[in-house]
Amino acid sequence: MILRDCLNFVLLEPSHAGNIGSAARALKVMGFRHLSVVAPRESDPAHHPEAIAFASRASDVLEGLQVFGTLEQALAESQLNIAVSAEGREFGPRMLTPEALASTLAELFSAQAEAAPPKRISLIFGTERTGLPISVVQRCHLLCAIPTEGEYNSLNLSQAVQVLAYVLARQVGQLRPPEPVRQAAARHEHWADDASTEAFYAHLERTLVSIGFLDPAAPRKLMPRLRRLFSRARLTNKEIDILRGILSQATPSNRP
Amino acid sequence: MILRDCLNFVLLEPSHAGNIGSAARALKVMGFRHLSVVAPRESDPAHHPEAIAFASRASDVLEGLQVFGTLEQALAESQLNIAVSAEGREFGPRMLTPEALASTLAELFSAQAEAAPPKRISLIFGTERTGLPISVVQRCHLLCAIPTEGEYNSLNLSQAVQVLAYVLARQVGQLRPPEPVRQAAARHEHWADDASTEAFYAHLERTLVSIGFLDPAAPRKLMPRLRRLFSRARLTNKEIDILRGILSQATPSNRP
Repeated sequence: MILRDCLNFVLLEPSHAGNIGSAARALKVMGFRHLSVVAPRESDPAHHPEAIAFASRASDVLEGLQVFGTLEQALAESQLNIAVSAEGREFGPRMLTPEALASTLAELFSAQAEAAPPKRISLIFGTERTGLPISVVQRCHLLCAIPTEGEYNSLNLSQAVQVLAYVLARQVGQLRPPEPVRQAAARHEHWADDASTEAFYAHLERTLVSIGFLDPAAPRKLMPRLRRLFSRARLTNKEIDILRGILSQATPSNRP
Repeated sequence: MILRDCLNFVLLEPSHAGNIGSAARALKVMGFRHLSVVAPRESDPAHHPEAIAFASRASDVLEGLQVFGTLEQALAESQLNIAVSAEGREFGPRMLTPEALASTLAELFSAQAEAAPPKRISLIFGTERTGLPISVVQRCHLLCAIPTEGEYNSLNLSQAVQVLAYVLARQVGQLRPPEPVRQAAARHEHWADDASTEAFYAHLERTLVSIGFLDPAAPRKLMPRLRRLFSRARLTNKEIDILRGILSQATPSNRP
């Protein structure tokens, strides 16, 4: 599977069905095909007349639109989450240009990567009016901002989709996972998906509370800081197994 | 301070004083000045006639040579350790070309980095005959291999120093830390030095033993795996404080 087919464009709570249609078209012209929406205002946006009109001949992408109730559901199988936002956030991931994002994706598809190339990658776009909330940015591995000139830096939602689709299609769309790779570890390890990763964070948080390190009444920035650390590393399944094993063993009630 | 002045070239157990002199010259011509040796065969290599001869007009670099008894001492203040080796190792860091290494260094000097640019960076070269031992590669954040053609891939020690000095001087030597950076976190965080990082790993290992997760008699690959995870992330001082706080709290004897 080439990189292009691993990418899912996820629109969070889009208000306008027309934007969903435009996004479908933007993807189609660049050879992408996976589009998802989370909690859209219109309950069945793929069949909304405006979406159909704006999608033009990208009706297959629009027909394939996946609609999710929550972001957790949309990301469950995603192994790499990329927030698209013009703003950096405290304890959020480092901000990349689209070109730098392409380079990072290329690294994950190289024979030198620590684990097999991700099969599911999510590019997450915020709402038309308010962008992405900080909690979403903090749960992403990477953050991509589209450079603009001057003070007005807010692209229309489907325009932002178009720019990312263009740069990624040009630079890395055709990349294939490498032939069996040199490092034994990479052959056997896989990046953890979002559901496993979130389950790890929940386990980590419970454990920190149970050992008295985290006060739920005054959590400070502890979890965002720990999320940022592990997001920088990107966790493999095997690493999550190890870390959860440690957490279980560290929990007082689990020890003899 | 520009990036060039942050780089320390560390030669592990070099056998030939002439190589140390050649390395000094290789650095000098590219504008670098920090050269260290760990446990050299000659006890005072800076004043060995062969070293002086090969250093030619790089006598200032040779005079500034630092001699350490152990790698730990040589790296104590280093915030980023880069192994130079033609071979990848299990649970070692991802292998980079010199050019890719330059890009990674540039990222750490960008305003988008998660912490302030490192002030001390170590490039570690192995012995003439056997290269770097696996334990050294596993304690490094990054691994750099010089691409070669054909089957014979072993550069002379000082030639390897010259290639790295050339590429890094050309691509990133002049980089300066950015003006006060955008993300608040980056202003206040600093990459942990090697001494703090090793103290964390020692603490982690003790804790894993004390909670019964790690059997010292059968350690398997647990510590190398955990080192790789945290090396990928590169730890900041603040993160090490948090992680060690968690470890202390997780240790049975420290809990009420």
